[in-house]
Amino acid sequence: MPATAISPTRAQDYPEWYQQVVRAADLAEQSPVRGCMVIKPHGYAVWERMQSILDGMFKATGHQNAYFPLFIPLSYLEQEAKHVEGFAKECAVVTHHRLELGPDGKLIPTGKLEEPLVVRPTSETIIGAMYAKWVQSWRDLPVLINQWANVVRWEMRPRLFLRTAEFLWQEGHTAHATQQEAVEETLRMLDVYATFAERDLAMPVVKGPKPAAERFPGAVDTYSIEAMMQDGKALQAGTSHFLGQNFARAQGIKFAGTSGAEEFCWTTSWGVSTRLIGAVIMTHSDDDGLVLPPRIAPVQIVLLPIHRSDEEREAVLAACRKLEAELVATRFADGPIRVRIDARDMRGGDKVWQHVKQGVPVRVEIGPRDLATGSASLSRRDRGPKEREAVPLAELAGRAAALLEEMQRGMFERAAAFRTERSVRLGSAAEVRDFFGTGEVAGRGGFAYVHVADDPAVAEAFDPLKVTVRCIPMDGEDEPGTCVVTGRPVPRRSVLARSY
Amino acid sequence: MPATAISPTRAQDYPEWYQQVVRAADLAEQSPVRGCMVIKPHGYAVWERMQSILDGMFKATGHQNAYFPLFIPLSYLEQEAKHVEGFAKECAVVTHHRLELGPDGKLIPTGKLEEPLVVRPTSETIIGAMYAKWVQSWRDLPVLINQWANVVRWEMRPRLFLRTAEFLWQEGHTAHATQQEAVEETLRMLDVYATFAERDLAMPVVKGPKPAAERFPGAVDTYSIEAMMQDGKALQAGTSHFLGQNFARAQGIKFAGTSGAEEFCWTTSWGVSTRLIGAVIMTHSDDDGLVLPPRIAPVQIVLLPIHRSDEEREAVLAACRKLEAELVATRFADGPIRVRIDARDMRGGDKVWQHVKQGVPVRVEIGPRDLATGSASLSRRDRGPKEREAVPLAELAGRAAALLEEMQRGMFERAAAFRTERSVRLGSAAEVRDFFGTGEVAGRGGFAYVHVADDPAVAEAFDPLKVTVRCIPMDGEDEPGTCVVTGRPVPRRSVLARSY
Repeated sequence: MPATAISPTRAQDYPEWYQQVVRAADLAEQSPVRGCMVIKPHGYAVWERMQSILDGMFKATGHQNAYFPLFIPLSYLEQEAKHVEGFAKECAVVTHHRLELGPDGKLIPTGKLEEPLVVRPTSETIIGAMYAKWVQSWRDLPVLINQWANVVRWEMRPRLFLRTAEFLWQEGHTAHATQQEAVEETLRMLDVYATFAERDLAMPVVKGPKPAAERFPGAVDTYSIEAMMQDGKALQAGTSHFLGQNFARAQGIKFAGTSGAEEFCWTTSWGVSTRLIGAVIMTHSDDDGLVLPPRIAPVQIVLLPIHRSDEEREAVLAACRKLEAELVATRFADGPIRVRIDARDMRGGDKVWQHVKQGVPVRVEIGPRDLATGSASLSRRDRGPKEREAVPLAELAGRAAALLEEMQRGMFERAAAFRTERSVRLGSAAEVRDFFGTGEVAGRGGFAYVHVADDPAVAEAFDPLKVTVRCIPMDGEDEPGTCVVTGRPVPRRSVLARSY
Repeated sequence: MPATAISPTRAQDYPEWYQQVVRAADLAEQSPVRGCMVIKPHGYAVWERMQSILDGMFKATGHQNAYFPLFIPLSYLEQEAKHVEGFAKECAVVTHHRLELGPDGKLIPTGKLEEPLVVRPTSETIIGAMYAKWVQSWRDLPVLINQWANVVRWEMRPRLFLRTAEFLWQEGHTAHATQQEAVEETLRMLDVYATFAERDLAMPVVKGPKPAAERFPGAVDTYSIEAMMQDGKALQAGTSHFLGQNFARAQGIKFAGTSGAEEFCWTTSWGVSTRLIGAVIMTHSDDDGLVLPPRIAPVQIVLLPIHRSDEEREAVLAACRKLEAELVATRFADGPIRVRIDARDMRGGDKVWQHVKQGVPVRVEIGPRDLATGSASLSRRDRGPKEREAVPLAELAGRAAALLEEMQRGMFERAAAFRTERSVRLGSAAEVRDFFGTGEVAGRGGFAYVHVADDPAVAEAFDPLKVTVRCIPMDGEDEPGTCVVTGRPVPRRSVLARSY
């Protein structure tokens, strides 16, 4: 065994470390279909945890789920000018609806469609077309719908979870009678994402509006949550868009107001995706592999029976089953503690390392000597892989929820401290260049809080550094200053960073 | 208000009645994309209930969820000869990965793919390609994976839920070391489907192997569950396939056995889809609209406050909230009772009829007079829309679970009695022709239990009647006889029916 379970380490080669963590944790792998990943059971189980929590939060804020077609007619994409510019470049296009077997045994596409269909890269246009039918009067508003779905955006340089041609996500689409309601909805869902990121993923985020150049194509305002990865880069972890009346005008989503006059709706859309799994990996994992926040860990506590003889095996397994029953009866966060007995017949060391690499928060080893002393050997994934603590068996279930809570909070605090350490307030373009250095130097950079105007000149100035304005943080106070590029007055600082 | 909420009635025009029930219950509608439906919130909520129960059953039988690519390279489809024949005809084919805006503002597909991709009609080939990588030794087996996904099969004559170009489903795919294990898995999942259909959907099913002509393309054996709709037609509600080594050979899914020798795996696949929603509608609904079995009803009990003055409103709403809290604290089937207060400001009659048409199992009206007598007015969806029963408010929550259970059982029994009434045992081809009549006469036909051989001559003989062999029922005893078409001896009767 090398000094660390993952090779290379973060310090040696961060991008390759990421790939190796994904592989060692058995989360996902590339498929034979260019750019499309296979989400393996462990990775999908993490996604199911995220879905379950988010779905509850969407429903608690009044949303219902529905399902809209995978395919979008080309003419729909053409309706909103900026939208089509933003998405047409990277679409999978269906042109035929049949295959015929040629004489050489090869399949040939036939049945050419009159109008080609695009595999949805996002669903504003097809969902908007339905809303235009459904909404007639103010009584039909608001429409508050979410969809869990797959989407496709052709990617030439895919990376597991972070950037894949097909990915899973949710997309909320709402329609409102007034601008104010739609803006409130946009910000409400941004808050839902921020709460989820910080409470459940233990991942501190900065939230705020993005500059014009980084807006969703067709939106009036795009808000994002931005998290800092362990290489100091930003990862956009969720977005919420105020679409104004742009899509409503393009698609004819109109309603008769209380006075009877016809008006266009105000719409929003918001989404997070399987990219969040990449964000969690890069926020918390270490050189021994995946580290999962307890709230989204598919298994929170694994029980490892240790034995040589069959007789020992029986006694040890019985103790594991008793402890399992006690733990399942204990609640943590949104449900019973998720516990698993791993009684597979394999070398104990290999088994322990597998759970370390898969990020299981707590391991409990129980052997004959433990039984004799009425204790168990507990290891936490947020400590060194060889640290153990003897815990009285009788007390373990009673202490488990508090332990998981402590770990969850500890992970958040550690990530927040890291972010603080790598965040700076800078006063000039020269300072920005100095902070980030040129090119991508591992360990250089972080979040730079800088006064910049929402102006193409700013993007241009920092483009050689591969640095962009991530968002204008909404938390904290206004702090007027002067744009370091254009010299124009601006009311507060923006966050600049390299990003995924 | 006409005599019934749905027009036409079942007796007048069954197919149109079905469309009107779907519309009146606000379950789904056609989208502008040919053959693709929009599943509206109420319909999707029913699907979520089905998913939740099935997912629990899959996990309880040792399966894990994962996710595989939407796209399948043409060369993969070509691998299994029968499979390609069965699915190539009706595929959506992606040929380009980019769009460019022409001078006329129209989008033009560009970026032609070297190898076209098919939108998955089912995933045996792409999942098999991954299993071929994952499985090396007997220690890697069994592989027990399920996927919740959308699939596309081009349909020229779509019908909501029953037959749509895109639909939602789950597909289980497993790989085993021995034939016996794979056969056991095939039958285990068939049993899971039968249990779910009968216990949760209150829908009696016949389960058994299908004749060769009706097999899944590439399967050694296909088993199905078949339910009888209220027009006497069969609906195939789920299938479980024993694939033998056909796909394993085509795709190279091999393992080193305990002796070290290399062997091909034995694989299975099994699935149910949003078609189940159509099955539920056609099994239980009546001329007043949707009737939902309590176990899958998104709302099991709706509370309807009745009031004139604001003062009355306060008192009545307070009573509703108290009852809601009591009901939520009560468990039925797999969780707390799902209750909703409908305090919308609309005409009471309209509101009641909306819940009738949406299939809510129990309605409870509470007005000032009820409060005075300490009672509520309860209506059951399985009785006439105007039948009411006064129930003491204090007893309602205590009786709710038993009431829902009684309704669930009653629905199953009613459907089973209907099926019995419309099932016959026939002894000759002439009797079969007489039973079904020629052409599709509403109210004619049902399930005919007949001795037939697994032979193309049988399919041919009954093709003019539009009658097929649905399956060879596994329940009940063997009853040797002679095929009414070929005269060959067969060990037991098959079920013949018209079908969806």
